[in-house]
Amino acid sequence: MHVSNEIMDNPHADRVKRIAQLAQSRARKKSGLFLVEGPQSVRELVTYRPEIIKDIYVQTALNYDDVREDGNAVARLHDSSAVIARILDHPRMRDIYVHYVSDAVMKQISDDAQGIVAVAEAGAMIHVIEELLNASESQKPTTLAAFWQIRDPGNAGTVIRAADAAGCSAVVFVDDCVDALNTKVIRSTAGSLFHIPVIRMSADDFFTSMHKADIPVIAADVHGVEERESESLQEVVRDPLLTKGSHATLFGNEARGLPAEILRKSSRIVYIPMYGKAESLNLATSAAIMLHTLAMSSHVGTI
Amino acid sequence: MHVSNEIMDNPHADRVKRIAQLAQSRARKKSGLFLVEGPQSVRELVTYRPEIIKDIYVQTALNYDDVREDGNAVARLHDSSAVIARILDHPRMRDIYVHYVSDAVMKQISDDAQGIVAVAEAGAMIHVIEELLNASESQKPTTLAAFWQIRDPGNAGTVIRAADAAGCSAVVFVDDCVDALNTKVIRSTAGSLFHIPVIRMSADDFFTSMHKADIPVIAADVHGVEERESESLQEVVRDPLLTKGSHATLFGNEARGLPAEILRKSSRIVYIPMYGKAESLNLATSAAIMLHTLAMSSHVGTI
Repeated sequence: MHVSNEIMDNPHADRVKRIAQLAQSRARKKSGLFLVEGPQSVRELVTYRPEIIKDIYVQTALNYDDVREDGNAVARLHDSSAVIARILDHPRMRDIYVHYVSDAVMKQISDDAQGIVAVAEAGAMIHVIEELLNASESQKPTTLAAFWQIRDPGNAGTVIRAADAAGCSAVVFVDDCVDALNTKVIRSTAGSLFHIPVIRMSADDFFTSMHKADIPVIAADVHGVEERESESLQEVVRDPLLTKGSHATLFGNEARGLPAEILRKSSRIVYIPMYGKAESLNLATSAAIMLHTLAMSSHVGTI
Repeated sequence: MHVSNEIMDNPHADRVKRIAQLAQSRARKKSGLFLVEGPQSVRELVTYRPEIIKDIYVQTALNYDDVREDGNAVARLHDSSAVIARILDHPRMRDIYVHYVSDAVMKQISDDAQGIVAVAEAGAMIHVIEELLNASESQKPTTLAAFWQIRDPGNAGTVIRAADAAGCSAVVFVDDCVDALNTKVIRSTAGSLFHIPVIRMSADDFFTSMHKADIPVIAADVHGVEERESESLQEVVRDPLLTKGSHATLFGNEARGLPAEILRKSSRIVYIPMYGKAESLNLATSAAIMLHTLAMSSHVGTI
């Protein structure tokens, strides 16, 4: 670990401004860098993608006065310090540059640093579908969690985490989605962004790739289309041909779901059965239930 | 529907202040009233619990200038007006008092009214477990979603919605939980608060009731205790004795999970299998997966 000699304590320094700007998509594009905030995300970055880290910034002394007098916040801060200490001890930190910064500098860099941020290279986070489909370990079925026009950063992060928990091979963001390197997205993934690739592609390319690779697309939709009825998840998981093989589950936009032309191109249409009086579940919850149900079915004997 | 003749247009009126104060727990306790914000929640209140409504306040003209120039917000506002119009046309509105208010008054009442709020009686939302367990339709198994020390209002609302979607008989808030009549909780339930009872009780009373009613408690926990190992959800759902009968699933606090003394009192301890590199899922996601998986198993033949 390379530690710079000086503590960065000028919140108005150019370098500080440049880091803070990484919260904006334009600055990320221009610099080819992105910002990772907080002990949990930085820990996962150091553990899984240390090669893409440019610098790590650590707050010299966590300022306890800033913390509201509620037990949970203080507990979280204690936890943060312990996690940061373990990160700095990590064997993969060997070649990484660490800069200590003052409280004021950290505040300028990020609202939600909890004592540590990292700056990493965005280019290394760009994945293409061919890479995945041609991967040598093609013995294992490919399972994809795809999202069409997912827009809310919190949702996007939560679904990447859910896809990781369900053991998906990759996440696909189809058409016009939120930037996966948005700081709020990264925070909501709780590190999962560094566990599985997030691939961005158009709907046309997505269906072409899935067709070529013979991967059925399961669209999540309650109503279905005239040509194809929606089937209950409860029944679909009993079809081992589907759950044991490669498949891509495709979810729609938060407000509008999936358009008919996408449903028509999908192999199956599936809904989550509702047993009470609730009409629906939100996108992140639906995705977690569907992906995890499919995963559990694929991991047991035929059910 | 009784419509008052005057438009309320004084944001400093006592009545306006009193309604706005219902965002605070103390004001709710003192007045015995609570506030329901937004078209979706008010619609579910009117549909399922019209008898507890005291007054409904509708904004005279939705102020489009207030809306940021993003397409989604405008679309939501259009949706709001249509939903509000349908609410006011609802047959159950017959005996309800409606007051039109100015934009300024609505803004004072609530940050998130989207054109409509209701004031309702809190007393009618208090439910006791005996009521449920003695219900005549005791032929049907009782399924409970219980939460120990759930604290975050957004989580609390989301899990009430998930429990409703999974067809649970009731939600139980055990020990020191967030107030279910908190405005943020209500908003996050998306109306489910008016679909199923939320019962509040101590851990001791909860276990005593479950024991007396012969309802097994399934605790959600990864680690288990020395006396009892945690079992995978994937296996547990294959036990029809459990899924087809009455049961209560108990989840822990967001940060601390469930304490050992509660795990020891539970009949089974269950974890959600993780297939990727994610270590865990958040409480709301875990609860949705577990409750819905159990519900799907109880609704099919033995799986």
